[in-house]
Amino acid sequence: MVKITVTLGKRSYPIAIASGLFGDPTAFVPLKTGDQAMLVTNQTLAPLYLDSLRVTLELSGVKVDQIILPDGEQYKSLVVLEQVFSALLEKSHGRDTTLIALGGGVIGDLTGFAAACYLRGVRFIQAPTTLLAQVDSSVGGKTAVNHPLGKNMIGAFYQPISVVIDLNCLQTLPMREFISGLAEVIKYGITLDFRFFVWLENNIDALLARDVTALSCCIRWCCELKADVVSTDEREENGRRALLNFGHTYGHAIEVKMGYGVWLHGEAIAVGMLMAAETARLLGCFAEADVERIRKLLSSARLPIHRPAEMTAGSYLTYMKRDKKVLVGERRLILPTAIGRAEIRSRISNDIVLTAIRACSKSS
Amino acid sequence: MVKITVTLGKRSYPIAIASGLFGDPTAFVPLKTGDQAMLVTNQTLAPLYLDSLRVTLELSGVKVDQIILPDGEQYKSLVVLEQVFSALLEKSHGRDTTLIALGGGVIGDLTGFAAACYLRGVRFIQAPTTLLAQVDSSVGGKTAVNHPLGKNMIGAFYQPISVVIDLNCLQTLPMREFISGLAEVIKYGITLDFRFFVWLENNIDALLARDVTALSCCIRWCCELKADVVSTDEREENGRRALLNFGHTYGHAIEVKMGYGVWLHGEAIAVGMLMAAETARLLGCFAEADVERIRKLLSSARLPIHRPAEMTAGSYLTYMKRDKKVLVGERRLILPTAIGRAEIRSRISNDIVLTAIRACSKSS
Ligand SMILES: NC(=O)c1ccc[n+]([C@@H]2O[C@H](COP(=O)([O-])OP(=O)(O)OC[C@H]3O[C@@H](n4cnc5c(N)ncnc54)[C@H](O)[C@@H]3O)[C@@H](O)[C@H]2O)c1
Ligand SMILES: NC(=O)c1ccc[n+]([C@@H]2O[C@H](COP(=O)([O-])OP(=O)(O)OC[C@H]3O[C@@H](n4cnc5c(N)ncnc54)[C@H](O)[C@@H]3O)[C@@H](O)[C@H]2O)c1
Ligand SMILES: [Zn+2]
Ligand SMILES: [Zn+2]
Repeated sequence: MVKITVTLGKRSYPIAIASGLFGDPTAFVPLKTGDQAMLVTNQTLAPLYLDSLRVTLELSGVKVDQIILPDGEQYKSLVVLEQVFSALLEKSHGRDTTLIALGGGVIGDLTGFAAACYLRGVRFIQAPTTLLAQVDSSVGGKTAVNHPLGKNMIGAFYQPISVVIDLNCLQTLPMREFISGLAEVIKYGITLDFRFFVWLENNIDALLARDVTALSCCIRWCCELKADVVSTDEREENGRRALLNFGHTYGHAIEVKMGYGVWLHGEAIAVGMLMAAETARLLGCFAEADVERIRKLLSSARLPIHRPAEMTAGSYLTYMKRDKKVLVGERRLILPTAIGRAEIRSRISNDIVLTAIRACSKSS
Repeated sequence: MVKITVTLGKRSYPIAIASGLFGDPTAFVPLKTGDQAMLVTNQTLAPLYLDSLRVTLELSGVKVDQIILPDGEQYKSLVVLEQVFSALLEKSHGRDTTLIALGGGVIGDLTGFAAACYLRGVRFIQAPTTLLAQVDSSVGGKTAVNHPLGKNMIGAFYQPISVVIDLNCLQTLPMREFISGLAEVIKYGITLDFRFFVWLENNIDALLARDVTALSCCIRWCCELKADVVSTDEREENGRRALLNFGHTYGHAIEVKMGYGVWLHGEAIAVGMLMAAETARLLGCFAEADVERIRKLLSSARLPIHRPAEMTAGSYLTYMKRDKKVLVGERRLILPTAIGRAEIRSRISNDIVLTAIRACSKSS
């Protein structure tokens, strides 16, 4: 079992990575005999993993209740949150309870936020089951639900007490979801670690085949990078954590305009990262050859590299203006300066941004 | 203007107390020209104070939006919270916005929680308008909304950036609400400060007449005590802040069983404090003369000193078991050891508690 620590003083916590962890009671320490826990999952995951996880916990003497939510981003809402609170109150869960999020980023974000608010804060454990959740959303304590007027608008910074990653889960993940998760994986290479980018170039086929050794190495690497970023900038205050939004300002425009779920998050982010790279190239601070190298890796990962034909370049600007990150006022973009390095830039002209967006269409 | 500081490192904040502060732009520093703010208030307070507060802020160049909620504890809910988020998003409030809670504890708790969650946390200012809110709920960062299955079940510890107490507000407060607030005032005397208790005995008539000098002295004293408690035990972890729950475990039983609003919070707490004092007396750790002294002060404050005839003594136990504070498992009670000193006690027999409750009936 690989162990990584997210270092945050008294709130530090471990990330455990291995195959079969959902069957291993020691993975869920510090839960112990007599403790109360609430498993939160969805209708897709319940038949796959709920019973085994339940048995594992019960073997350790943990009293387990469960709540099974409908599957989908549209259920990451205040309404569903209230259902989680109802379940907790009906079963008399107290301040010493632990919520366990069994699922992808949707379940993780919602459960984490529920834990942040229930009785003004109870413990929670992330048991991420998608590639995206294992490499990104389960680590770092960003929790949230959506509002009809915007994604992730309501939430909290609230850290789990541990992250338990069972690599076996990925075998049942639909291929399209798996590939979407690879976009976040590639993001780490471009923004933070050239060596990891090269490793990805050499191992993308093994990853696509879901080879366990490759997956283990990849997820560990991502979690180490994320843990390091979160340890040094928990609340996205000093610019370091913001780098992980690379490609997201462009990508969100696609997600929102196309309608959630039409383009998956990672698919939109893939094109968004290319747009950001192109923007950096136009500004003269990123090499054309490196844009190509990114395009090639995304393409080998079977991620989209062309923007949706339905959207005009201009329409991105409207959505980019509304992005949560720019509610502060100015549009800030994360741009690469080399593969493995990125920075925050503001005051970039609309012309440059538009040209970069246009460069990512099929025809060009 | 009296200034008190709640000392919490980087999150320290001032409490300003004076007559007429809602007309004084300097009271709302650090808000400055160009800043965005959202005033949150209710239908009762809007006609009384909203316009003047708005003008004050606009004079400083602050861009002010407002949301007027219905008045009542039943609107301290997730549903109403979502309306606050909608207003913020519709008016494009960003991460640098400031929410201002203009109202009693209901508006303060809801607005504070909205600030804690909106975009994972924006600034907020408490502008408390009830006696209860000025001496208790606006200071200390406990924020929450209710759930159909329990009061204050969903919330956060989230500190305001300042508390602005305009003493003039209290002149329009209904007498019954004012008196209810006196219960929390008396609570400080019993649990934390004998000198303050004596001061209250000598000044209760001036307070009831809402004499501004007496009010100013009283509110300042309470805020200093609360600020000190919060500074040393922000999250109710080391037992000090828990002392402020004195009388509440008993009182909540009355509030819940009688139906919210039938007995006001302070009215229920008044009888609850007497029950707690009686419990301590029965345990032999509190003098009978001191129980009488408390009874006398409550009575001079025109607070109830007899429990509702409708409730059997036994019915309290059921509600006390469900109290949020005891969701941890054991029933813990805050008991006085002298006037001005209290402690947390557990493992107190039902018999003692029942006898103490019975002692507070009209007939006895
Ligand atoms: N908190 C953060 O830092 C952060 C970071 C990135 C994304 N997010 C959020 O994450 C969410 C997206 O997460 P996601 O991509 O994991 O989507 P998801 O949670 O919706 O999961 C995708 C789909 O795969 C199914 N699934 C999950 N695991 C499975 C498995 N092992 N086998 C079979 N099916 C499985 C799910 O039921 C769902 O239908 C978004 O809401 C996004 O905002 C949060
Ligand atoms: N956060 C905390 O630490 C804390 C502590 C104690 C109580 N509380 C919460 O506070 C709430 C009770 O607060 P409250 O007693 O202030 O009740 P409230 O906010 O409901 O106000 C009482 C009534 O007085 C009206 N009112 C308020 N100010 C007025 C004024 N100046 N003139 C005329 N009318 C006015 C209100 O509209 C309301 O009708 C409860 O929800 C309780 O849970 C929180
Ligand atoms: Zn992402
Ligand atoms: Zn109270």
